[in-house]
Amino acid sequence: MRVFFAAPPPSWDRWAPALRAACPEIELCREGDPAGFDAVIYAPGYPAGGQEMDFRPFTNARLVQSLWAGVERIVGNETLTQPLCRMVDPGLAQGMSEWCLGWTMRFHLGMDHYRQDGVWRNTLVPPLASGRKVTILGMGELGRAVAAALRGVGFAVTGWSASGRAVPGVRMLGAAALAQALGQAEVLISLLPDTPQTRGLLDARRLAMLPRGAVLLNPGRGTVLDDDALLAELNSNRLGHAVLDVFRAEPLPPAHPFWRHQRVTVTPHVAAETRRSTAAPVVAENLRRAMDGRPLLHLVDRARGY
Amino acid sequence: MRVFFAAPPPSWDRWAPALRAACPEIELCREGDPAGFDAVIYAPGYPAGGQEMDFRPFTNARLVQSLWAGVERIVGNETLTQPLCRMVDPGLAQGMSEWCLGWTMRFHLGMDHYRQDGVWRNTLVPPLASGRKVTILGMGELGRAVAAALRGVGFAVTGWSASGRAVPGVRMLGAAALAQALGQAEVLISLLPDTPQTRGLLDARRLAMLPRGAVLLNPGRGTVLDDDALLAELNSNRLGHAVLDVFRAEPLPPAHPFWRHQRVTVTPHVAAETRRSTAAPVVAENLRRAMDGRPLLHLVDRARGY
Repeated sequence: MRVFFAAPPPSWDRWAPALRAACPEIELCREGDPAGFDAVIYAPGYPAGGQEMDFRPFTNARLVQSLWAGVERIVGNETLTQPLCRMVDPGLAQGMSEWCLGWTMRFHLGMDHYRQDGVWRNTLVPPLASGRKVTILGMGELGRAVAAALRGVGFAVTGWSASGRAVPGVRMLGAAALAQALGQAEVLISLLPDTPQTRGLLDARRLAMLPRGAVLLNPGRGTVLDDDALLAELNSNRLGHAVLDVFRAEPLPPAHPFWRHQRVTVTPHVAAETRRSTAAPVVAENLRRAMDGRPLLHLVDRARGY
Repeated sequence: MRVFFAAPPPSWDRWAPALRAACPEIELCREGDPAGFDAVIYAPGYPAGGQEMDFRPFTNARLVQSLWAGVERIVGNETLTQPLCRMVDPGLAQGMSEWCLGWTMRFHLGMDHYRQDGVWRNTLVPPLASGRKVTILGMGELGRAVAAALRGVGFAVTGWSASGRAVPGVRMLGAAALAQALGQAEVLISLLPDTPQTRGLLDARRLAMLPRGAVLLNPGRGTVLDDDALLAELNSNRLGHAVLDVFRAEPLPPAHPFWRHQRVTVTPHVAAETRRSTAAPVVAENLRRAMDGRPLLHLVDRARGY
């Protein structure tokens, strides 16, 4: 099985050993006749120089496997007619759950209220997690994993998704109930993908639906958020804090006001970091399925965009 | 059933309504003939003025129920011959678990490494929780609850206790293996009670057994820690950070160096805050057991001191 590795050069050093270890039968290549490859492994930023990847010459590829969970930078590529699969790394879901849980705990416990100024203020006792309302927007693989982690600690979790499909232990709300989902969110976590329907969803009108003092965590996609609307809500003291891991432009430009805003914490797109040790076996499994003609895992629905 | 409430005055307003709601059959009093009471509810700081409580006149009390989990301020009182029970509040164990989990997550995720200075540093990817070693000293009710919460997120938890008694999912080490328990602790959580055996346990020699960069969380008892030894380890950059919730003197004096040390975070004895809504029913249950002559819950072993 011959596989073409279409990802920026630093990815090669990071991924090739893990992929070969997980799938010794593959021949992983960075050059060669496109028609001679059975599959393509892809990550944004390839080819170098900013032009779009041209998938047309890969006439025999049975699978294009993304190394990223988000596929918005490839799903609109009209040269891509092969089956496209997203990365769903069990380590990624775990890492995302840890990021969301950790930041939720920080605000839940009021860690930043304990000023180190010599004054003993022991009147701030946070409610137990069961008395803290967290809303998750987007209840796909990652949203469900985050919900399970928060539920495990005891938080009162509400999930919002287009379908409103049931998730055990989570109060689910569907598309029409967005105002309700936002209105009760002491902590709001956006795990929405980047689609035409979600772009700019968290605008001034929606952010104004959050309760006073609410905290926003955005480890999903930067395009969901209206940056200026968020800054206005923070500056008017309506919202408490925002922790942002994703942005409309990445790396976030040094002059962006998020960097130095006292109530914004920037993390550099680390929440959904793929761990190669857990991701490579998933890629290996999909390559084998493609060769055997079995159903592929995590196939992208091109109409939905994810 | 008549119960004498022996706790500082502010406690009366906080506790009396919750206790009466949980146990409508009790007559809760702050004065009266000591021999006329069936039980005593006690908290440190009573009576006012610093003298020790004299339990001798309570000749008919079948139970002294502490409102505090820690009983070191009463267990040595020689006038106390009645059965003494510690507070084991299910809300307290949950609150303690949340405090320990939240601070562990903060250091696990390296939150404080993301400086807000406009520089995109996305090379720091923490291991998953399964790759992070946490050691808990003291595996009583609270230690086991904290271990379960950490295990739920996936952390690799080692427990150390005098008995080394097995706890599901936790690597247990006994008294003789303290060096081993400390040597692998990326995060060390002390939940040891204050006893002659634990006083000053975390001294210079023991702190030096921790791996470089380790983080200490102490929500247990302040007497376990040698303050100066900790400061020396932090100042030499051997240890990474300490989050301290308990101290040898409380409130921690404004001039204590912990307050302004860059790598010490002081929280004002809030980790083990008893929640009255969950604690009052436990007190009620014990009062009923005392009246019925049934075995008491959470009876203190006077020889062990807790």
